[in-house]
Amino acid sequence: MSNAFELTILGTSSAAPTRNRQPTAQVLNVNDRLYLIDCGEATQIQLKRYKIKFSKIDHIFISHLHGDHYLGLLGLISSMHLEGRTSDLHIYGPHGLDEIINIQLKYSQTQLKYKLHFNEVNTEINKVVLSNDQITVSSIPLKHRIPCTGYLFLESQKQRKIRKDKLEEYQIPVNQINDIKDGADFTTESGEIIPNEELTLPPAAPRSLAYCSDTAYHEDVIPIIQGADILYHEATFTEDLSERAHETYHSTTIEAGRIAHKAKVKKLIIGHFSARYSDLGPLLEETKTVFENSYLAIEGETYNEETTNTSQPSSEVLQ
Amino acid sequence: MSNAFELTILGTSSAAPTRNRQPTAQVLNVNDRLYLIDCGEATQIQLKRYKIKFSKIDHIFISHLHGDHYLGLLGLISSMHLEGRTSDLHIYGPHGLDEIINIQLKYSQTQLKYKLHFNEVNTEINKVVLSNDQITVSSIPLKHRIPCTGYLFLESQKQRKIRKDKLEEYQIPVNQINDIKDGADFTTESGEIIPNEELTLPPAAPRSLAYCSDTAYHEDVIPIIQGADILYHEATFTEDLSERAHETYHSTTIEAGRIAHKAKVKKLIIGHFSARYSDLGPLLEETKTVFENSYLAIEGETYNEETTNTSQPSSEVLQ
Repeated sequence: MSNAFELTILGTSSAAPTRNRQPTAQVLNVNDRLYLIDCGEATQIQLKRYKIKFSKIDHIFISHLHGDHYLGLLGLISSMHLEGRTSDLHIYGPHGLDEIINIQLKYSQTQLKYKLHFNEVNTEINKVVLSNDQITVSSIPLKHRIPCTGYLFLESQKQRKIRKDKLEEYQIPVNQINDIKDGADFTTESGEIIPNEELTLPPAAPRSLAYCSDTAYHEDVIPIIQGADILYHEATFTEDLSERAHETYHSTTIEAGRIAHKAKVKKLIIGHFSARYSDLGPLLEETKTVFENSYLAIEGETYNEETTNTSQPSSEVLQ
Repeated sequence: MSNAFELTILGTSSAAPTRNRQPTAQVLNVNDRLYLIDCGEATQIQLKRYKIKFSKIDHIFISHLHGDHYLGLLGLISSMHLEGRTSDLHIYGPHGLDEIINIQLKYSQTQLKYKLHFNEVNTEINKVVLSNDQITVSSIPLKHRIPCTGYLFLESQKQRKIRKDKLEEYQIPVNQINDIKDGADFTTESGEIIPNEELTLPPAAPRSLAYCSDTAYHEDVIPIIQGADILYHEATFTEDLSERAHETYHSTTIEAGRIAHKAKVKKLIIGHFSARYSDLGPLLEETKTVFENSYLAIEGETYNEETTNTSQPSSEVLQ
């Protein structure tokens, strides 16, 4: 079984796409099931470009209703339908998203072959919106011009690791292994109780991704994203444009770095770059002055909690 | 002054985009003013790719409300706004389009810096929807699964060409030239009336483009598009899939060619290709068996009533 927890970036542009950068979208792979996070125009085209299968996506999370974060959604929904999808699709997003999608399905007279479930997310509170055997996803209230939510993806607690030497030593039957992984003790035929701690090792720590799409500098997010393995935080502007950032309820590089530092996250990825930057190197450099373990979001690249992204920053990819 | 009347193809895919083909969009350049025809997802990205300025587009024509023909519209509207556009934008399309756009502008809380004019097009009749000093545009009722209209773009009648030798011979004052180009006679100082026919040559014939986006074989369009310089007609399928074409209210290559032949158009461009075709050569070959002067729609290429498209069909571009 795959043990992936990795984020692939599909779009890094703020507002309008540029010739080289697409609107916001990214996909989190958790053990080969995919969670799509925002879905700007042409996301389906990016998914195809990077050979990511639509059929592996069952959950789509939309942060807010500015077009650069959701305009690709209807195209993707339609293409899933054309591909013959039958399994349910779950969509999470602010009030209004279902109305926008439904009116378009009405006029195109589309009867989807699969079921769409809309889950309206309250953008004012931190609340669990999805919990399954893989992950728990909760909302992160952000501070933007319109209602906007980030999302925290926290891997589910895994089972403890059973020690093979103990399996043999105590001749543990196969049908008890799962209980022991869940923390049960083992009773031998002679009635001796072997405590779980002797039989198992602690599980790997659950991994987490905090996604803060569009937001002004907002310290309220810090307790929610505290210690995240990966923080994606927008950094639309360099610090010299902090006034513009404040006017538009966006963050600067330094502000993104400061949130990462204060929240003690392990890794920061910045994105949502203003179209004015053709060279992204200076944005990364500024961010690193506040938080060293920072990376640029680069389309088509995949990040996890451990690996270092090797193509940062090279002028070929940053142009 | 530019005398262009040429069509640039932006998207050629039917339904879902493929790795190499985008959803339907094309732009007609009439004397350096641009008329955008359909606006599938990522049209704004295609416009940027081919260095076509948004600011030159004042009129957008949408054929129907299947997503592959209009999903790029809101992104383009937003990007025009972000670019600082102030001039009015006129949108033509079937019932429902204004509702779809307005609800999205409402939820994104966007106050456009320019004015949007919606013009609802009756898809059941052939009727003028726009007439200005350059062109007259009329609707072409098509036969599709949902209300769908094509558009006929007919260049406005041009002025007659004044003969330079006659200007000199009769010493015609500058302030009378425009009237003479419009057909007026000239009266000399001695009172002699020189008939217009002696002073001028007939104008170039008005050029025309007929756009038939998504339609089953439909002979009713023939009288409307009769003799057009360029007919763009969908040819989603090869002839062996005629049953599939009929079920989905699309046309085959042979049907597109037959319409071109019966309407005695000068040039046929086929497009809206099913994703199943990676090599488009066979579609063109089939079409040519019925109508010789046929061309494939190829993204980024520009067509007018005269020039022959040189890159047809080469395996590089057709893959």
